Amino acid sequence: MGSIHEVAKHAGVSVATVSRVINNSTRVTEKTKSRVDKAIEELNYEPSILGRNLRTSESKLILVLLPSVANPFYTEIISGIEDTAISRGYHILLCETDSNPEREAIYFNLIRKHVADGVISMDPTVNKERLAELSADHPIVQCSEYDEEGTIPHVTIDNELAAYQAVKHLIKLGQERIALINSDEKFLYARERRRGYEKALVEYGLAVKKEWIYNANKLEFQSGQLAVRNLLSQGEKPTAIFAVSDIFAIGALKEMNIKGMRVPEDMAIIGFDKVSFSNMTHPPLTTVAQPMYRMGSISADMIINKICGKEVESIILDHELIIRDST
Amino acid sequence: MGSIHEVAKHAGVSVATVSRVINNSTRVTEKTKSRVDKAIEELNYEPSILGRNLRTSESKLILVLLPSVANPFYTEIISGIEDTAISRGYHILLCETDSNPEREAIYFNLIRKHVADGVISMDPTVNKERLAELSADHPIVQCSEYDEEGTIPHVTIDNELAAYQAVKHLIKLGQERIALINSDEKFLYARERRRGYEKALVEYGLAVKKEWIYNANKLEFQSGQLAVRNLLSQGEKPTAIFAVSDIFAIGALKEMNIKGMRVPEDMAIIGFDKVSFSNMTHPPLTTVAQPMYRMGSISADMIINKICGKEVESIILDHELIIRDST
Repeated sequence: MGSIHEVAKHAGVSVATVSRVINNSTRVTEKTKSRVDKAIEELNYEPSILGRNLRTSESKLILVLLPSVANPFYTEIISGIEDTAISRGYHILLCETDSNPEREAIYFNLIRKHVADGVISMDPTVNKERLAELSADHPIVQCSEYDEEGTIPHVTIDNELAAYQAVKHLIKLGQERIALINSDEKFLYARERRRGYEKALVEYGLAVKKEWIYNANKLEFQSGQLAVRNLLSQGEKPTAIFAVSDIFAIGALKEMNIKGMRVPEDMAIIGFDKVSFSNMTHPPLTTVAQPMYRMGSISADMIINKICGKEVESIILDHELIIRDST
Repeated sequence: MGSIHEVAKHAGVSVATVSRVINNSTRVTEKTKSRVDKAIEELNYEPSILGRNLRTSESKLILVLLPSVANPFYTEIISGIEDTAISRGYHILLCETDSNPEREAIYFNLIRKHVADGVISMDPTVNKERLAELSADHPIVQCSEYDEEGTIPHVTIDNELAAYQAVKHLIKLGQERIALINSDEKFLYARERRRGYEKALVEYGLAVKKEWIYNANKLEFQSGQLAVRNLLSQGEKPTAIFAVSDIFAIGALKEMNIKGMRVPEDMAIIGFDKVSFSNMTHPPLTTVAQPMYRMGSISADMIINKICGKEVESIILDHELIIRDST
C-alpha cells in the first residue's frame, strides 16, 4: 500500500490535489481526477478515513482483542505484548470483546479506519470469516487461540499435549478416577485439552466417564465450586480433578475447603495457566504453566514485523508442569 | 456542545459552508463568516480536528486510562463502564498507562486527534497539569482517584472514612496493636486511608507506631508477604493488620499460612476492595467493599453526559465493611 506522497508523485500532482480528489472536492478537473484515481489504483493506496488530512498513515498503535480483562490469564500476556511493543515504538489499545460479535465489529472498524496499524486477537470466539476477510487487507496475528483451518499466523502452546501430561501426572500418582472440569467446547483450547485428557485415560486403560466431565458455562470461581458439588453427588465419585483453568481449580479447592475435605488426600486438583494467585491458595495449586509473557512478547514481535511487511510464521511454545501441594 | 448541523441551521447556511469557515477557506464572504462564527460561539461548538472533513465528529469511543489491568480492582469497574457505555451506544478502549507519563501522553493524543470522544481516567499518577489542560477542551472524568485541588468531575468513595471504620472494626474486636500495610503515599487513596487508620487509633487512645506502618513498593501479593515478615521481626509485634488492598492482605494471609500461624487468632487481617478472589482465600478475607461496578457505571454515565454537553457533578459513593473469617 503506497502513501499519499507516492500517489502524488506517480500522478505528477501535489499532495493537496490528491487530498482534494479523495475528499471529492469540486475544485479538481475531470482529467486530474482520473489521473489521481489511476495512481491510487496502481499503487493500491487506501486512504485512511480518519487520517485523510494527516501527514502520516501510521498510528503506531496495535489493537489487542481479548474476551475479558477479568481473566488473569490475559494480564501477563498483555504485559509481554506491551513491553515488546513499547521497545519497538508502538503502543497498544485493549479491546474487551466480551465474545460479542457486535463489539468485535466495532473494533475491526478501527482497523479499517487506520486508527491502529494491526491487531493481535486473543478472542477464542472471534468471527472467523470476518477475521479472515480483515486479514486479507490488514496485519493480524492470533495469540493463544487460533483458527485450525485458517492462515492467520499465531503463537500458542500444544494444548492437547499439555492436558495429556497433566492427566498422566495424576495417573502416575496412582489416581484412577479422574474428572475433567472443562470450558465450553466451542473453544478450540477446550476441545484440544479434552482430547489430551481422554488420550491419557485411554492409554492407561482408565474409563472415560461422561458423568465425570463437567462443562462450565462461565470462566469464574463459582463454576469450579459448582463442578465439585456436581462431581461429589455422583454415585461413583472421582478422586482427582483436572481443571482446564486455574480459575476452575481454585473454585474447586475452595469448595473442598468448605466441605471440610482435604486436598490432595480426598481430591487431588490440578489447574492450568499458572495465574499469579495459583500460588496463594491453600494448598498451593499444581498447574500447567503457559509461557504467557513470552506468548505476548512474541505476538507483539509478529504483528510489528507484519506491519513492517515482513513474512511471519506461526509458533508453538513449550508449556511446563508446575507440581505443588494440591496433587 | 452543539453539532455542525445545529451550527449550520442556527446560522442559516449549509453544513459545507460551516466546514469552509472552520477550515479557513477563502471562498466564504466576511459576512457569512461572522454569522457562522457567532453561531459557533452561541452553541459552544467545538470542531474536531480530525473530523473537520467528516460528516460526523463523534467516534462513539471512550478511552479508559488505568495503571494496570493486572489489578483485579479495576476489572469490575471496567465491567460497569462497559455495560453502561454499550447501553448508551458507546464502546471503550482500555489504555494501560503503567503510571508512565510517556504512555499517558500518547493516549492523551488520541483524544486530541478525536479518535475517542472522552476519557475516564483511573490512573492515580496521571500528570495533573496535563490532565487539567486536556480537560479544558475535552470531556474528562476521573474514577476512584481524583485531583484534590482540581475541577475535574469524579466518582469515588470516602477513603478516609472507610479506613477509619475498618480499623475501628479491629479495635471493637479487642485489637490494640494494629499495623498498616499501605501503598506508596504518592497516591491520594493511600494518604486518605492512612489518615483514617491514624484517626481511629488516636480516637481510641492507641499508639500510632511508625514501625507498624509498612509502605509497599508494588501492588502485588509478594508485598503483603514481605510486610508480614517485616512486621513479625519487630520487637513489639502487631496482632492485627489493616491492608489498603486485598492483594496485600492475601499475600499477608499466605505468609501467615506458610509460617504455620493462625488467622485471625495470631493475626487478624482486613483487606480493601472485595476483589473476587478475596472470598477464595483460607480463611475468607474481611474487607471493605467498594461499589466498583457502580463506580464504573456512574463514571460512564458522567463522561457520556459530558460528551453530550451536560453539566456533571462529582459523586461520592458508599462503601461497605464485609466481615468474614479473617478478623
